[in-house]
Amino acid sequence: MNSKLRPGTAETYPITDRNRAKRLHERAKYDRESVYAILDAGLLCHVAYVIDGQPYCTPTIHWRKGDWLFWHGSAASRMLRNQSKGAQVCVTVSHIDALVLARCGFNHSADYRSAMCFGTARLIDDPNQKAEALREVVDRFYPDRTSLLRPSTDQEIKATSVVGMKIEEAAAKVRTKGVGDEEEDLGLPIWAGIFPVTTVIGAAKASALIPAGTEMPESLKIYAEGRRLDDALLEAQAHYEAE
Amino acid sequence: MNSKLRPGTAETYPITDRNRAKRLHERAKYDRESVYAILDAGLLCHVAYVIDGQPYCTPTIHWRKGDWLFWHGSAASRMLRNQSKGAQVCVTVSHIDALVLARCGFNHSADYRSAMCFGTARLIDDPNQKAEALREVVDRFYPDRTSLLRPSTDQEIKATSVVGMKIEEAAAKVRTKGVGDEEEDLGLPIWAGIFPVTTVIGAAKASALIPAGTEMPESLKIYAEGRRLDDALLEAQAHYEAE
Repeated sequence: MNSKLRPGTAETYPITDRNRAKRLHERAKYDRESVYAILDAGLLCHVAYVIDGQPYCTPTIHWRKGDWLFWHGSAASRMLRNQSKGAQVCVTVSHIDALVLARCGFNHSADYRSAMCFGTARLIDDPNQKAEALREVVDRFYPDRTSLLRPSTDQEIKATSVVGMKIEEAAAKVRTKGVGDEEEDLGLPIWAGIFPVTTVIGAAKASALIPAGTEMPESLKIYAEGRRLDDALLEAQAHYEAE
Repeated sequence: MNSKLRPGTAETYPITDRNRAKRLHERAKYDRESVYAILDAGLLCHVAYVIDGQPYCTPTIHWRKGDWLFWHGSAASRMLRNQSKGAQVCVTVSHIDALVLARCGFNHSADYRSAMCFGTARLIDDPNQKAEALREVVDRFYPDRTSLLRPSTDQEIKATSVVGMKIEEAAAKVRTKGVGDEEEDLGLPIWAGIFPVTTVIGAAKASALIPAGTEMPESLKIYAEGRRLDDALLEAQAHYEAE
């Protein structure tokens, strides 16, 4: 039992025709812990949705609270206007961990982690829920930051739409095996191996016109120069869940 | 005129209701050069498609040749079986360049580059075209590599499907401005700034059982440790186009 799951939440998502992996079953996982770990390690998701039969794939920033995913944007955006009415969506978060060079073309690959989540997007239009979500989109990434900020104006709140989706089904896929050549190809005089890939944080650059004496808060030091972004995001999520 | 465009190719994609940015018009670009630069700097795309009204968002590796995008996978995969018949898809490639922390919640943002491409996916089933594509999925990333590899077997070729899509319409969105606070918020005693984010290559790890004397080919040194992945991928694409 994963202690992070809310009481009454099953460990595993239902497996249906929608989320069942059609191939490479050994890479697929349907448990919430695996799915959450991939979602929480990223801030960029891609949302697939349909308008008049046409699929769209929009990148946006997501955050997770329990079994809900949230994203937000301009009230005028095509995606959010469409999803306000309650739309089927598929939200995917992916991380590339290594390029994999094998001894034949067929076995070239990549190590990766991805989570594909299905549900119905809904506009968060209750004013209290929306205000909470607009705090959380900041505080989930930057612990306690909204308490330090200039408060949002009514106009800013009105100009922003927040959409939420309960994750109905999900599938995680994880490949970590590096080079997976056929046994009979091992020993061929061909260089094979991996190029690891990581997304890292650079040196923070302060904005102009910050008054002397206003330092970066301690809570932002989780985004230390050189650190892996996925590690920082997981730490920020742990802060958020501990509140 | 971009000299990289093939003769007869317009510099700019048509702008229709499908790809026109509904907001933040100043971030949107419709010229092929801007779209190509974003596509070529990444290897991971997300493909949105629809099966029985349900949207799916599948991550995969893409490559670009002229105005065509390609991706591939198991002939058994749901995505490729569906797209074999000719399916409307939206393929999106996104890069996060910085987390942007402002002086109010509303102006928190990210610097990013994304390209959203629309078209009809088609199975590449001509044997010669397919063989060429299966060479190119390797050689586009790793210059001249297939000439060094154990050749693909008929079974491997049969087990793989390649899908291609002519880009009919596309839109690039690029945000580079960092902190974009309201003028009246400047000078508030609030730390604001950016955390740059880059995806970098780590130290190559050779596979086990490589015979003594088999070194990494010079052509792979574009994936040098510490280098930005997007720079390496752009250099590899330039090699590919020069052939």
